[in-house]
Amino acid sequence: MAQAEESASDGAGAVALDALSPAQWGQRAWDLLEKVRARAPLVQCITNFVSMDLMANTLLAAGASPAMVHSLHEIDDFTPQADALCVNIGTLSDGWVPSMRAAAAAAFRAGRPWVLDPVAVSASEFRMEACLGLMALRPTVIRGNPSEIIALSSASRVQGSKGADSSHESLDAVESAKSLAQRSGAIVAVSGATDFITNGQQVIAAHNGVAMMQKITATGCTVTALIAAFVAVEPSAALEATAYALSIFGLAGELGFKMAKGPASLRMHMIDSLHSLHEQIVVSGANISLVS
Amino acid sequence: MAQAEESASDGAGAVALDALSPAQWGQRAWDLLEKVRARAPLVQCITNFVSMDLMANTLLAAGASPAMVHSLHEIDDFTPQADALCVNIGTLSDGWVPSMRAAAAAAFRAGRPWVLDPVAVSASEFRMEACLGLMALRPTVIRGNPSEIIALSSASRVQGSKGADSSHESLDAVESAKSLAQRSGAIVAVSGATDFITNGQQVIAAHNGVAMMQKITATGCTVTALIAAFVAVEPSAALEATAYALSIFGLAGELGFKMAKGPASLRMHMIDSLHSLHEQIVVSGANISLVS
Amino acid sequence: MAQAEESASDGAGAVALDALSPAQWGQRAWDLLEKVRARAPLVQCITNFVSMDLMANTLLAAGASPAMVHSLHEIDDFTPQADALCVNIGTLSDGWVPSMRAAAAAAFRAGRPWVLDPVAVSASEFRMEACLGLMALRPTVIRGNPSEIIALSSASRVQGSKGADSSHESLDAVESAKSLAQRSGAIVAVSGATDFITNGQQVIAAHNGVAMMQKITATGCTVTALIAAFVAVEPSAALEATAYALSIFGLAGELGFKMAKGPASLRMHMIDSLHSLHEQIVVSGANISLVS
Repeated sequence: MAQAEESASDGAGAVALDALSPAQWGQRAWDLLEKVRARAPLVQCITNFVSMDLMANTLLAAGASPAMVHSLHEIDDFTPQADALCVNIGTLSDGWVPSMRAAAAAAFRAGRPWVLDPVAVSASEFRMEACLGLMALRPTVIRGNPSEIIALSSASRVQGSKGADSSHESLDAVESAKSLAQRSGAIVAVSGATDFITNGQQVIAAHNGVAMMQKITATGCTVTALIAAFVAVEPSAALEATAYALSIFGLAGELGFKMAKGPASLRMHMIDSLHSLHEQIVVSGANISLVS
Repeated sequence: MAQAEESASDGAGAVALDALSPAQWGQRAWDLLEKVRARAPLVQCITNFVSMDLMANTLLAAGASPAMVHSLHEIDDFTPQADALCVNIGTLSDGWVPSMRAAAAAAFRAGRPWVLDPVAVSASEFRMEACLGLMALRPTVIRGNPSEIIALSSASRVQGSKGADSSHESLDAVESAKSLAQRSGAIVAVSGATDFITNGQQVIAAHNGVAMMQKITATGCTVTALIAAFVAVEPSAALEATAYALSIFGLAGELGFKMAKGPASLRMHMIDSLHSLHEQIVVSGANISLVS
Repeated sequence: MAQAEESASDGAGAVALDALSPAQWGQRAWDLLEKVRARAPLVQCITNFVSMDLMANTLLAAGASPAMVHSLHEIDDFTPQADALCVNIGTLSDGWVPSMRAAAAAAFRAGRPWVLDPVAVSASEFRMEACLGLMALRPTVIRGNPSEIIALSSASRVQGSKGADSSHESLDAVESAKSLAQRSGAIVAVSGATDFITNGQQVIAAHNGVAMMQKITATGCTVTALIAAFVAVEPSAALEATAYALSIFGLAGELGFKMAKGPASLRMHMIDSLHSLHEQIVVSGANISLVS
């Protein structure tokens, strides 16, 4: 482990990403998963009701420790204890916005990473305003589907969006993602058939996953929480950590898909696969590359 | 597809239901499922916390697009975008009633179908009043278990009801359902070993399903959301669409049951089966008939 | 059944627990499970959002009838109808505390058992105060992990607690549990590799379960609800009933584990196994003993 941690830390600073071979990307993804398992980061999730079960079980399967804590009365006591925070506006209501804001501010003050999932940001002005307010609190990472990232980047609701589903492909949103990253200072990840992750300059692509994962509710929400767990143990390399979380979640989906007969068995096998990932399969299966 | 849509539309108006053979019922059920898959109706669900995961995953498996959106601040922006609305009072609390009412009114104004699930309406006066208030907003369909429909029809709480479980058989509730349909103008569906669906005059019976589905929480809630998806794509034939949704959900349960070892594996196989239903199995397996 | 009930009732009063053979413990556990199946106790659950799905499905698989009802407006009407109440502070917020208090008081007035799960009581002062307030309303049983029981027993937050996970072993908490039982008058159960159950004098150990159950979110919450169901049908023997619920849930986990490939399939097989438990397997598999 000590060696693995070193190499991951070294890499984050020292090795240029464009010099990495496919296997080296995979090795670094594995090193970071091992670190999550070893440290079991406590991830506070203020998230929508639909996602809670899948998100908590996925974090547990990855080796992290989930905590669904959302009361405003608990932020001061609890958030500084957490290693990372995940904020998701999926089933937003009035009472939750102040908690989200207070927790984001507390995480920022404590120097802890926090991750924003702007679910269905185009669905209403209420959602857009809540997201813009949260953006001002300096998220470490923002992950969304293409329509969400395009909308957030332009601070205007995208017409034709359909609830939590995207009406765009991920490639369409890369420029929006870069622009959003530059303005916000956050790492921005766009999920899709290929996931793109950018800090505003560099763009990494993660090619893992299967289409049927979209037929499982809250997979997007869940990978955002997984990003929080990964960034928690490697906060100085959030760009890479985000890519590894997306790749590893997608890889678990690929492995699960081999045993699945439909979306419900995929969900089960995906979590089981995430729990039992080992070095060789991650090194060879993680499909990550530098785009620019 | 074009042909299928035509025949379904024709059928809704032109073909007398009493002239349908078993296979014709099955064919029409299949045609409507295909339409759901092709159009992917956006179904807004204001529903109880227990049901959200199963409901969202079932809608996705059927080809619909679920959106759990309940804030009063979002109704004006969001509900008119949705193709149908599902309102379920399972874990009712004060704050949600105004949202339910506003969404129901918005759906009605926009000419979109909305479906009411009066979960455990006899459990308290609070629930009964909420349901009666929602009834006044003209639901397109009301689906409940026998005890719920009997209570709602008489606007009085049924003694001996046990939480969300029924203390009556579905046949006992048919007259109540007809009376409720006549007074409310809604299609009324009573779930049970046999499901009965009525517009106040005609009564259709759907005979699919297995008893073990009652051992999975929120199956009743979930089929109500599936009804919303089906009615969304065939609003002018809500009586039939409701019967097809009930039959197809029951059929998915039957197919899942063949692989199940208990209620949890049934849940998984049921969703998988719903996702992979094909024409031949629906045409031969849907068990629907006209009662009167 | 009549005979089984008699023997269970006899046992509760007449047979000294230290005279029981392993098979007799198993027999009594089975007798009580049969009683749950026969009576299908209605268990009101005021519980956290993460746990609702697993809790409801587990209660159904055990033969009980779950009802997630939390509105303050429903307590007067509903709680006296319920056979037991389960209160869980996992995702506590302001609005829920008065409901929890009112329901606990209503259950106590009606002579119905109620069970408290002090999830992550050390996470904040807000949680600790809520728990201490609920303790004053005389819970029949309190179940927690070691860190939670130690914290509650000393009425002070345990440092180093990690969200809902324990930083202590169950044996470390036995003295705290006895002390808490003596002061509160409640049966106190500490979950862990071995579960300890005490009335302040006697201590029973239940040795069933597998470590991987901790990788499934809300298993702790869920066994608390199962305790409520078991105590509901044997309120005069709450010490034993609590031990049987813990043992049987653990046994279902052991059986499920034999078929599992990871935590998600364990979850499914565990529920299926609970549903299909039969006499021989419970009598031989329940691993219960009197510690002191």
